[in-house]
Amino acid sequence: MNFTIKNVLIPTHDDYATVDVQVVDGKIGAISPDLNVIGTAVDGNNQLLLPGFVNAHTHSSEMWQRGIMSMLPLELWLGELYDFAPLDLEQVYLSALGTAVETLFSGGTSVVDHLVLIPGQELATIATAVRAYQEVGIRAFIAPLIQDEPLTAGIPAGNSLQNHEPYLRSTAATLEIIETAVQQFHRPEEGVSILVAPTGIQLCSDALFKGCIELSDRYNLCRHSHLLETKAQEKLAQEKYGCTAVEHLYRIGYLGDRTSLAHCVWLTDHDIKILAQTQSTIVHNPLSNLRLGSGIAPILKYIQAGVNVTFGCDGASSNDSQDLLEAIKIGSILHNITDSEYQNWITPRKSLEMASLGGATGLNIADQIGSLSVGKQADLVMYDLTNLSLLPRTDPIGLLVLGRPTNVVNNAWVNGKSIISNSQINTINLDKLKQELFNRSQWESKRQSPTVAQIETHYRQIMDI
Amino acid sequence: MNFTIKNVLIPTHDDYATVDVQVVDGKIGAISPDLNVIGTAVDGNNQLLLPGFVNAHTHSSEMWQRGIMSMLPLELWLGELYDFAPLDLEQVYLSALGTAVETLFSGGTSVVDHLVLIPGQELATIATAVRAYQEVGIRAFIAPLIQDEPLTAGIPAGNSLQNHEPYLRSTAATLEIIETAVQQFHRPEEGVSILVAPTGIQLCSDALFKGCIELSDRYNLCRHSHLLETKAQEKLAQEKYGCTAVEHLYRIGYLGDRTSLAHCVWLTDHDIKILAQTQSTIVHNPLSNLRLGSGIAPILKYIQAGVNVTFGCDGASSNDSQDLLEAIKIGSILHNITDSEYQNWITPRKSLEMASLGGATGLNIADQIGSLSVGKQADLVMYDLTNLSLLPRTDPIGLLVLGRPTNVVNNAWVNGKSIISNSQINTINLDKLKQELFNRSQWESKRQSPTVAQIETHYRQIMDI
Repeated sequence: MNFTIKNVLIPTHDDYATVDVQVVDGKIGAISPDLNVIGTAVDGNNQLLLPGFVNAHTHSSEMWQRGIMSMLPLELWLGELYDFAPLDLEQVYLSALGTAVETLFSGGTSVVDHLVLIPGQELATIATAVRAYQEVGIRAFIAPLIQDEPLTAGIPAGNSLQNHEPYLRSTAATLEIIETAVQQFHRPEEGVSILVAPTGIQLCSDALFKGCIELSDRYNLCRHSHLLETKAQEKLAQEKYGCTAVEHLYRIGYLGDRTSLAHCVWLTDHDIKILAQTQSTIVHNPLSNLRLGSGIAPILKYIQAGVNVTFGCDGASSNDSQDLLEAIKIGSILHNITDSEYQNWITPRKSLEMASLGGATGLNIADQIGSLSVGKQADLVMYDLTNLSLLPRTDPIGLLVLGRPTNVVNNAWVNGKSIISNSQINTINLDKLKQELFNRSQWESKRQSPTVAQIETHYRQIMDI
Repeated sequence: MNFTIKNVLIPTHDDYATVDVQVVDGKIGAISPDLNVIGTAVDGNNQLLLPGFVNAHTHSSEMWQRGIMSMLPLELWLGELYDFAPLDLEQVYLSALGTAVETLFSGGTSVVDHLVLIPGQELATIATAVRAYQEVGIRAFIAPLIQDEPLTAGIPAGNSLQNHEPYLRSTAATLEIIETAVQQFHRPEEGVSILVAPTGIQLCSDALFKGCIELSDRYNLCRHSHLLETKAQEKLAQEKYGCTAVEHLYRIGYLGDRTSLAHCVWLTDHDIKILAQTQSTIVHNPLSNLRLGSGIAPILKYIQAGVNVTFGCDGASSNDSQDLLEAIKIGSILHNITDSEYQNWITPRKSLEMASLGGATGLNIADQIGSLSVGKQADLVMYDLTNLSLLPRTDPIGLLVLGRPTNVVNNAWVNGKSIISNSQINTINLDKLKQELFNRSQWESKRQSPTVAQIETHYRQIMDI
C-alpha cells in the first residue's frame, strides 16, 4: 500500500510548489522535492494534490427523493419527505454507496451521514450503511438520526392547542440502540465512527440530549445535531425553553469541541459567542438553506468570532446533489452579498481550509487528517489540472473552488488506500450501482403528501404567510 | 441532415411522454409516438429531450482570468480585469471556443457574448469570435461591448472632483465600427447575429445610447446592456441623471421587446413597472452577483410583475465557469430566501421555461426557437437519464435543474446540425483546444493590479466602507 507521488503541485503558504509525496503505512511519510520512490510511483505531473474534504452533514437515503421534492420550507418539506421515505435496507445500502461516490468525485474523503433509521430496523440500517461505506472505502462518520418527539412537535404551537401523537419509540429504547451501535460498529481506526446525533431541539427532549451527552462522554463520541435551521425553530426554542436554542444546549452541556451543528442560520450575537467559547463547529449547508428558503447563515460573522466552520451537502433531497465542490463554492461566495467590506470575504484558500481542516476539527481529529502534513493519515485527492474546466491555467485553487470543476478528481486515497485511480472508482462496480439505482426507481412527476395537507394550514398561520 | 429521434422522453404540460421527433431541414417536423424514421434514426431511449437554453449574458475572453481574480466588488474587480485583459486575437478565438463548448455541455445552444474588443483591433476581434462560434456551430449573438467613457467614470464622484482621462475612441468612431460589423457579420439565418451593446449607463453617454438605438432600428438589431448591477451604479445614475437608470433609459427610448438587460439587482418598483410595460428582458446572472457581492436580484418580483427573465453565466472571471445548469439552479433556488410565500418560488419547470423560451424572447426570436414545437428550429439537447447524477429516477426535470448534473448532455443540435453526439463534441477538436489553453497560460497565485491601487481609496470612501 506504500506509494510515492512524483512531481505534484501542492499549495504552500501563499504560493505553490512541485514536490514528491511519500505515503507509508497509510500515513504521509515525507513531502519534499526529489524523494526516492517508496512503493508504487504515481505520476503527479500537471496534478494538484490536496487533503480530502469532509462532507460534514448529509442524510444518505435522501438520494432516493432528489429531484422530486416540492418547493417547500423545511417544516412542510419534512412532511413530504417522510411520507415517501425508503423503508428498505437495500435502498439504504445503495444510497450510501451513491453518496460516498459523489462525495469522493467532488474531493471528499470523509462523510458524516446523519442517517435516517428505518423504524424497527434501526441497527440493521446502521449495519447496512457501515457495510456500504466500508466497501467504498470512504472514511465514515455515521450519526444515527434520533428523536423522541413526533414530527408535528417541530412546528411552533403559537396560541393553538396542539396534540401530538406519542413518538414511536421511547427515549430509553433509542439510547439503547445507539449504545449497541457504538459497541458493534464504532471502530475509528478502521474508518468507521459512530456519533450521537439527536436531530435537534425541535424534536428531542432534554432527556434524549442528556442521554447522548452521557454516551458521548463514556465512549468518547462526537456529537452532531441540526441547529436553528429555520425561523420556525427560532420561535419554537423560545416557546419550549424561554431562551434561544444555543443558550439551552449550552446549559445542558451539549456544546463542546466534539460537537458539530448543521445549518445555524438563526443565531444571535450572544449565541455566536457561546459557540466560539465552547469550540463548537458549524456545518454550513448553503444549498439546502437556499432550496428550503431557510436563509443565509451569517458565516462571515462566525468566522470573525473565531467559530470553526466547515461545509456539508446536506441530504440530496434538499440540495439535490452530493457535490461537495458545489457546496464549497456557493457556501463561500454567497456571503459576499452580506458584507460590503470585501476584505472579509472568504478567499478560495480559506474555503479549502474550512472544507478540510475545518471538517477534521469538527470531528475532533485535526491531529490526524485535514492537511498535507507529515505524520497525518493519507486522505488525499489529486485533481487533473489539464481538464477543460480547470483551464486556462491560472490559480489552481481559485479554479477548483470558484469554477465548476467536472471530472477533475483522478485519484483519491483514504488512509493511504487507493479508492479512485485514473478517474475511475476501483473499490465498487459503478455500472452495477447505476443499474441498481435505475431498476429500483421510476420517472414520476406528481405526488401528493398527506402530511403536508394535514399540517400546512397551521404552519402558514404560525409563520404568518 | 434530417433525422428522427425514437422513443425519447419529453415534458408535456405537467407530465412526461415518450415520443418520436422528426427533424427535417433544420426544423422540428413532427412530435408524436410511432413516427416513421426520416433520415438518420437516433435512439432516444432513457433520454430526455429539451429545447436548448440560451446563455444570455457572458464575456467570452474572461475565461483567461477565471480562478485568479481577487475577491473584489465590481468596480474594483473591473480595474483588475482590464489590467490583465488578453490583447491577442488567438486568445479571443480560444476563449470563444471554450465558452461555446462549456455552454453546449450544460444545455445551451445559444450564447450572447458581450464581447470585449481589443482596442485598435475591434473588427478583427468580432471577426475572430464569429469564426470560433461558426466552427463550433453554436447559435451566436455577438454583442460587441462598447463605451465612450473611461473606467473611472463608472464610480460615483460624490463630493470629490474627479478628472477622467478621455476614452480612447470617439463615440462616432465606435458607432462606425458597430455599423461595419453589422454589415459584415449580421447573418441571423446563418446563426450569427450582431447586437448593439453599450456596456451600461455607467460608462456610456446619451449620444452613444442614441446612436445604438438608431442602428438597432435601422438594421433590426437586438439591444443588450448591463443595468444596475451594483449599489454604486444606483448612486451613479442619480448623480448623472437625477433619476433612476431605468427611468433615464426609458426616456431616451432604449427599452423595448428587443432589449435585454443583464443583472438588474437594484431596481425600484417603478423601474420594474417600466420594464414590464416596455417588454424588456432581464438576464439573471446569479453567480457573478454573489461572487462580486452585487446583491440578489429580486427575480420573484420581476416574474410577478410579468417581466421576462432568463439566465446568463456572465463572464468566466466573475463566475468562474460557463455552466449554464449551475446558473439556472442557483438563479432559481437563491430566491427562496427572499419570500416566505413558498407558492411564489420558482419550480424546476418554470426555470426551464425561463432558460429556453425566456432566452428566445429576450432575443426576439421566440417564434423560432425556445420550445419543442413543430415548425421551430431544431435547437435541441438530449440528456442521458442513466447518468449517476440523474439517478435514482425521479422527476427528470427536477434532477436536471436542482441536482448537479455532470456529463449528462449526450446530444446537441443547432438548427438541426449535430454538434454533440455520444457525449463528444464533433465540430472541433477538444483535445487540441485544451492543449492550446494549457500552452498559452501558466499557474500563478499572485498579481498586483495598479488600477485597483489607484481607485480603491476613492471607492471605499464613496461606498462608505
